[in-house]
Amino acid sequence: MNATNHQFRLAARPVGMPKRADWNYTEEPVREPADGELLVKVLYLSLDPAMRGWMNEGKSYIPPVGIGEVMRAGGAGRVVSSKHPGFVAGDYVIGHFGVQEYALSDGKDVAKVDPKVAPLPVYLGTLGMPGLTAYFGLLDIGKPNPGDTVVVSGAAGAVGTVVGQIAKLKGCRVVGIAGGADKCRYLVDELGFDAAIDYKSEDVKAALRTHCPKGVDVYFDNVGGDILDAVLTRLARGARIVICGAISQYNNTGPVKGPANYMSLLVNRASMTGMVVFDYAARYGEAAREMAGWMAAGKLKSREDIVEGLETFPDTLLKLFKGENTGKLVLKVAGE
Amino acid sequence: MNATNHQFRLAARPVGMPKRADWNYTEEPVREPADGELLVKVLYLSLDPAMRGWMNEGKSYIPPVGIGEVMRAGGAGRVVSSKHPGFVAGDYVIGHFGVQEYALSDGKDVAKVDPKVAPLPVYLGTLGMPGLTAYFGLLDIGKPNPGDTVVVSGAAGAVGTVVGQIAKLKGCRVVGIAGGADKCRYLVDELGFDAAIDYKSEDVKAALRTHCPKGVDVYFDNVGGDILDAVLTRLARGARIVICGAISQYNNTGPVKGPANYMSLLVNRASMTGMVVFDYAARYGEAAREMAGWMAAGKLKSREDIVEGLETFPDTLLKLFKGENTGKLVLKVAGE
Repeated sequence: MNATNHQFRLAARPVGMPKRADWNYTEEPVREPADGELLVKVLYLSLDPAMRGWMNEGKSYIPPVGIGEVMRAGGAGRVVSSKHPGFVAGDYVIGHFGVQEYALSDGKDVAKVDPKVAPLPVYLGTLGMPGLTAYFGLLDIGKPNPGDTVVVSGAAGAVGTVVGQIAKLKGCRVVGIAGGADKCRYLVDELGFDAAIDYKSEDVKAALRTHCPKGVDVYFDNVGGDILDAVLTRLARGARIVICGAISQYNNTGPVKGPANYMSLLVNRASMTGMVVFDYAARYGEAAREMAGWMAAGKLKSREDIVEGLETFPDTLLKLFKGENTGKLVLKVAGE
Repeated sequence: MNATNHQFRLAARPVGMPKRADWNYTEEPVREPADGELLVKVLYLSLDPAMRGWMNEGKSYIPPVGIGEVMRAGGAGRVVSSKHPGFVAGDYVIGHFGVQEYALSDGKDVAKVDPKVAPLPVYLGTLGMPGLTAYFGLLDIGKPNPGDTVVVSGAAGAVGTVVGQIAKLKGCRVVGIAGGADKCRYLVDELGFDAAIDYKSEDVKAALRTHCPKGVDVYFDNVGGDILDAVLTRLARGARIVICGAISQYNNTGPVKGPANYMSLLVNRASMTGMVVFDYAARYGEAAREMAGWMAAGKLKSREDIVEGLETFPDTLLKLFKGENTGKLVLKVAGE
């Protein structure tokens, strides 16, 4: 092995939207795996809104990425060489490989996947962390009943598309909130949502009145901010709000906008509960099998928005915060 | 019966703190009860933070008081005459009698009480709605486990004092947040709280770090605003926040301050749930009996802050919002 590894390392903690200067693009020779290690050639990287939080100082559900460290990211790749008993060269794997071309790993949290069951990028989206987040957040926290009205924001994203489709499978009325007519059409025409609200061109509160005549039983929130506040005005009695993310607030330079209408929780005896998918690790397999079954049966559709080239990483990441992706945003690092 | 009934009626919807001009003080002759009615001489009125919300226009968990209507209020009184099969003259009763000297009632939601078991004002506080709110909010929503750290705001109020004492009975570490050294001393010295934080003179965040070294498992929130935001920074994993009130926000003329730190719910897999005591009506008796037992055993102390004179109502109500009461604020309308 005589290859060079290129990497994006965190150079500075961003203020607001991450800038090119917040990254260092570095290179170093690829080292052979030591005993117990495997070397992975990264083929695809998962770009997720949560990455913005990992760039901030301070306590969260996971430690921040240190200055100078390779940026944390989930990825899919192929094992190039292995001195780990669980892997051999040629295995396809997913894991937290970081924003780089090659990753050495001790095998912890690395899982083998079968590209004949689904293309590799799907293991970063619908059958990966975003899909599992949707599955456990909706079913375990949102607890939808047949006939419930389920609203999801960031509806055209990697998590939102799965939330809405699972809610439909469970017999719910599903309303998605997304930015732009194309995304809204996709949700209704392709994914079978009952309605979609374009927050960029519609009055969200008025549209919720129209599309949720019996109120909102489950709200799966990926965005926070004004949209969370709008949905709070439409809760049904006993509603469950799943707090999965707050992408509208991640690049704030001022304080986070707290939900001013939170007293609707009292009026409606409703709850707002945070979730982190890592807590469900013991059940990933069960959930992934069920979702793969739905995909095979054509009941769960997956869409990936694939951008090529590791070097585009700083700009491609921003597509998430500009709302430019539909489905799972994936960075293609190398050909298989 | 040849008496005159004096009443406070809502004259205007207040903007900010209710002013004297928002009330009309009216009088009318007392009418004899018709068939199925009883006439109650009001002896004590319950003054509650929730009354501020009832004065606002708009949908809530209960309809607003109409302009020109007698202000809604819970009260305790004596039946003067009755053509209702369930009551006789001389019965002591509690019910929603309104801010007036005499109330006619059809008996709905009127309950007989025994002044030999507890003085009448206690039936408006610890053995009344505030006590029941504390009981169900803490036990059903907060679900404290022995050893948990329970924090309550508005801790020296009618609800807060009961929340803290029940949490102690359940084996929890209890920290109260209240305004002023006297209230804080009362909580620790008289009621047995483990610690109290004076939000008027202390840095609440720093004090929570000191007094809740293992984080906050249950937060019973009566105040909202900055204190809710401070507690959010100290949640333990899986914390439960009970949203019972938001007295700091009730007289805002601008927008409500939403909890900017609400994403702590995600980081800590925590929940925030609203509650309204009326939902537990079927279990009032069971809870009141248990609390009366604790009182008789000296394990639950009740304190009332009694102000005399119906005519003081507009000013006395404001004591709640100025934080001037310790324990249950009661307006004494007439002698027994």
